[in-house]
Amino acid sequence: MTEIIKHTLNQIQAVDPRNLEIAQERLDILTKPPGSLGRLEEFARRYAAIKGTDSPRVRNKTVFVFAADHGIVAEGVSAYPAEVTPQMVQNFLNGGAAINVLAQHAGAEVVVVDIGVNFDFEACPNLIHRKIAPGTRDMSKEPAMTRQQAEEALQTGIELAGQWVEKQTDIFATGDMGIGNTTAAAAIMSLYGNKTPRQVTGKGTGIDEATLSRKIQLIEQAIRINQPDPKDPIDVLAKVGGFEIAGIAGLILGAAANKTPVVIDGLISGAAAVCACHMNSAIRDYLFPSHKSQEPGHDVFFQTLASPPLFDFGMRLGEGTGAVLALNILEASVKIYSQMATFREAHVSANAI
Amino acid sequence: MTEIIKHTLNQIQAVDPRNLEIAQERLDILTKPPGSLGRLEEFARRYAAIKGTDSPRVRNKTVFVFAADHGIVAEGVSAYPAEVTPQMVQNFLNGGAAINVLAQHAGAEVVVVDIGVNFDFEACPNLIHRKIAPGTRDMSKEPAMTRQQAEEALQTGIELAGQWVEKQTDIFATGDMGIGNTTAAAAIMSLYGNKTPRQVTGKGTGIDEATLSRKIQLIEQAIRINQPDPKDPIDVLAKVGGFEIAGIAGLILGAAANKTPVVIDGLISGAAAVCACHMNSAIRDYLFPSHKSQEPGHDVFFQTLASPPLFDFGMRLGEGTGAVLALNILEASVKIYSQMATFREAHVSANAI
Repeated sequence: MTEIIKHTLNQIQAVDPRNLEIAQERLDILTKPPGSLGRLEEFARRYAAIKGTDSPRVRNKTVFVFAADHGIVAEGVSAYPAEVTPQMVQNFLNGGAAINVLAQHAGAEVVVVDIGVNFDFEACPNLIHRKIAPGTRDMSKEPAMTRQQAEEALQTGIELAGQWVEKQTDIFATGDMGIGNTTAAAAIMSLYGNKTPRQVTGKGTGIDEATLSRKIQLIEQAIRINQPDPKDPIDVLAKVGGFEIAGIAGLILGAAANKTPVVIDGLISGAAAVCACHMNSAIRDYLFPSHKSQEPGHDVFFQTLASPPLFDFGMRLGEGTGAVLALNILEASVKIYSQMATFREAHVSANAI
Repeated sequence: MTEIIKHTLNQIQAVDPRNLEIAQERLDILTKPPGSLGRLEEFARRYAAIKGTDSPRVRNKTVFVFAADHGIVAEGVSAYPAEVTPQMVQNFLNGGAAINVLAQHAGAEVVVVDIGVNFDFEACPNLIHRKIAPGTRDMSKEPAMTRQQAEEALQTGIELAGQWVEKQTDIFATGDMGIGNTTAAAAIMSLYGNKTPRQVTGKGTGIDEATLSRKIQLIEQAIRINQPDPKDPIDVLAKVGGFEIAGIAGLILGAAANKTPVVIDGLISGAAAVCACHMNSAIRDYLFPSHKSQEPGHDVFFQTLASPPLFDFGMRLGEGTGAVLALNILEASVKIYSQMATFREAHVSANAI
């Protein structure tokens, strides 16, 4: 493990339970029956406790979309060809994708990172160029990447988190683009969920039954050939992960080290979060769930987080789309905390019974 | 039934199924796997179909909070004293309540209507003064209101909907304030859900078990004494309803007559919506569900609508708080429809399989 990764992991501390109590005390004097805003209160409490302030606010919001290609796509695991990865990156940069629309609605900046796309984006000034390789290798035949590459991807995420915290990002959302990446994510979820590939593998962008069977077999083969060690998340990321998954895991590490919350999107972001939590369990304190994806492997993330999804709209798009919707709700909860009147301020009679 | 109510009901037409098909065709050429945005697509499709346009937009958003008092409170059914109704109305007008914070977050105007509060708000210019009476009568002893009063409350909602549609409100959300109103709403849900009062009655703002038992008995008594006729929703509203519930029902009628969608909040708004749907079943086409309240009677609304809730945050506050959160998500779905690039525009390869 590199010094930067080691240092980052050492910086991460669990949230002080006393901060949670203080936050709950504030929520209980606001003009509403105690607890009547349900999970909005849970979110506000946790956000205030992370920030360690009685007047939490949300300044800049940033969704990071890490994009990369996957060698396994050559085996035919996706409904779309690999060229869709760079095409969609271009769509993100032009503002035409779902994540652009939903991020703008939530007032969040979209930052797109080429961490491993099999395309040369030389003419894209608003893209972050951090390509480690033009896609992973075919994990059904060999490790998806070297350990050094996995560490490089983690460090990329760590560095970007630090840079954006300096730019006053108060909360991150995670997103991904990578044709074939539900195959890698399902492999990770199988390893950490103690479940068979069949139990955690879904239809991704919309494959048929025959392709699904093949996808499951390839994941079984990738695990059998590479023997990733779940006790060593970097080994898992290297052997059956993806550059975007490792990049997201790094972003999560860097955010937690900087006491900055992260809203986690669907299966891909969930797999990255599971790897991160297995590197330091205190990271869970900084993660907020968003939607429940239609991908069955996503459940492993909620089990790891020990918190249920916030909503289930039957979404399965990735890009960070579920995360920015949840970010919007999380911001609403912070405003509840900071802007509502207390019973005393509003001259409202408190609970009589 | 008055001429205005009759005329409004006659104006309401089901949404043209062809409009829904046209909207789905548009959604399917946007740069995402077909159906991958789940319920966001369902919401966008319905909104576009209601508006009958290929470029739907959301201009003004308005949450109406109808406030009224309830005679049944004298029997001891709430955790809060009746004076909290006018105190909270004042809190709404001062901008300190949860609905103010959440509506501002969603960019929605809050309109507060005194339709039956037991307090004289003479010094409140930004309150809509449409008081029918200073609270209902005690429904456990006599009808909550006269049939004429129920019709007046319905007409109030109809008129306000029409006025705000003229002011370019493209979507409404419903909200309520009234200590004791979960008792009235549970009675309505019992009648329309074919369920016993015990099955549909919850703890409202947070009453204890003894008070809950008493609340259930009082609802049973109110139904036994008044014999409301479920075939006649105005009779139900008059005998076991409330002024704010009838006002919300009227707003829904007026909105549907003007082809304007309405996002429905929790138990109280749900009870109003159930009454409205029993006056004209085409109204369902204009209603959007929001959250699932902790109140058990709320389920009757989702059964009537034949659509599940959008999310369940364990909320039980009322005021329209769940509805404006959902409104925000609905607006996001409309932006998806109108602002995303198509596969052709973005030069992205469509589904290969």
